Amino acid sequence: MESQKSYQPSYPTSARNQVKRRHDRGFYDHATVHRILDSSMMCHVSYVIDGQPYCTPTFFWREGTKLYWHGSSASRMLRNQAKGERVCLTVAHLDSLVLARCGFNHSADYRAVMAFGTAYLVTDPVEKERAVVAMVDRFFPDRTASLRASNVQEIKATSFIAMEIEEASAKVRAKGVADDDEDYELPIYAERIPVRTVLGAPEPCPRLLDGVSRPATLNVYSEGRLLEDALRDAYFVEYPNG
Amino acid sequence: MESQKSYQPSYPTSARNQVKRRHDRGFYDHATVHRILDSSMMCHVSYVIDGQPYCTPTFFWREGTKLYWHGSSASRMLRNQAKGERVCLTVAHLDSLVLARCGFNHSADYRAVMAFGTAYLVTDPVEKERAVVAMVDRFFPDRTASLRASNVQEIKATSFIAMEIEEASAKVRAKGVADDDEDYELPIYAERIPVRTVLGAPEPCPRLLDGVSRPATLNVYSEGRLLEDALRDAYFVEYPNG
Repeated sequence: MESQKSYQPSYPTSARNQVKRRHDRGFYDHATVHRILDSSMMCHVSYVIDGQPYCTPTFFWREGTKLYWHGSSASRMLRNQAKGERVCLTVAHLDSLVLARCGFNHSADYRAVMAFGTAYLVTDPVEKERAVVAMVDRFFPDRTASLRASNVQEIKATSFIAMEIEEASAKVRAKGVADDDEDYELPIYAERIPVRTVLGAPEPCPRLLDGVSRPATLNVYSEGRLLEDALRDAYFVEYPNG
Repeated sequence: MESQKSYQPSYPTSARNQVKRRHDRGFYDHATVHRILDSSMMCHVSYVIDGQPYCTPTFFWREGTKLYWHGSSASRMLRNQAKGERVCLTVAHLDSLVLARCGFNHSADYRAVMAFGTAYLVTDPVEKERAVVAMVDRFFPDRTASLRASNVQEIKATSFIAMEIEEASAKVRAKGVADDDEDYELPIYAERIPVRTVLGAPEPCPRLLDGVSRPATLNVYSEGRLLEDALRDAYFVEYPNG
């Protein structure tokens, strides 16, 4: 049995995922990578068909060191990836616009993850059944139990794609204005403009039946909250062990 | 001379950019595609190195039917693309989370553009000089004139990449809850949760010299505004003809 030790699990690095520029902005530990992933519902997936790269925005979720996404069985991306294609799945959060005292120091604060792996079509019935639930419950805990059950045609028409994260890197900038030393002497205005992605007031479907009200499990999605806080809260209800 | 006519310029369609699923969500006209692009500062660029796809988040701007982005001359993406590589540049806006009465009708409202083309390194000195200004002034109109001028080393160390949009498609969902007809009879809660990306209060650099104040040109970036509204306003100040 492994002895207790202070151990920070990390993704391996290679020429592929090593942050080449601004090494100080690169992180590979699971905690940093997963937190950035779990703060987002949307990712961008890159894949190649006949030498042409595609970049498709889609929804995804994480289970351990695996990432899942889905779509119609007929979709181009999934048809291609079912064969076991190399993909890169990226998540980026924009945190601020940074206006500096010279053009090239204009920047932004951000948090981004690039995750690399080989995508595979989920064909194992148990894994697919779990994915049908997780695609909803990861975002809205326990919701599946209250829904009209998915039917055979719906499940058949939907492909789930999964990818074990083989390599991943996080890149974070969080320092606001950072000018060249001598430029601070200049009478030039500089600032940081924060950017936040927030939830609006929920809009109940106008066709709700009488007596049907918002379940308490949706309380994490309340007006004015940061989307990323709601998503992380929901994640930890569904996956308490992270 | 061409006669005046009602003409909606559009991007050509091919197997590459034709929206395959949900045809009703696909648009190819310049107006729709450009509006989605100009509402964003950040894009994701996909490119291929030795068969491995990469998906890199970066800042970009549009000039007519060309897209520009930049980075250090040393960056992996730009070194690769300088050779004239196929790329796909994607922008996506998340507008709401949609909770339906069954799992597979859970969705989101969104606006996304995928733009395809061949990236090239900007080597023409006039085009590069214009890009050095546009990378700032497209977002912050007239700002370059007030900054410490870019020096030769900075310009040399930065590569600009440009791409003529050969094909592009926009995909838009904006309908909130859309359940199967018979599911509206069920006592299940459904809603749309709006998502908005907004500006916080600007944070002036703590090292501003006495008497240096925020220029009026930054007024479009005011607390509480939608980021996309500010970006589009700024765009039309700098490019009044769209």
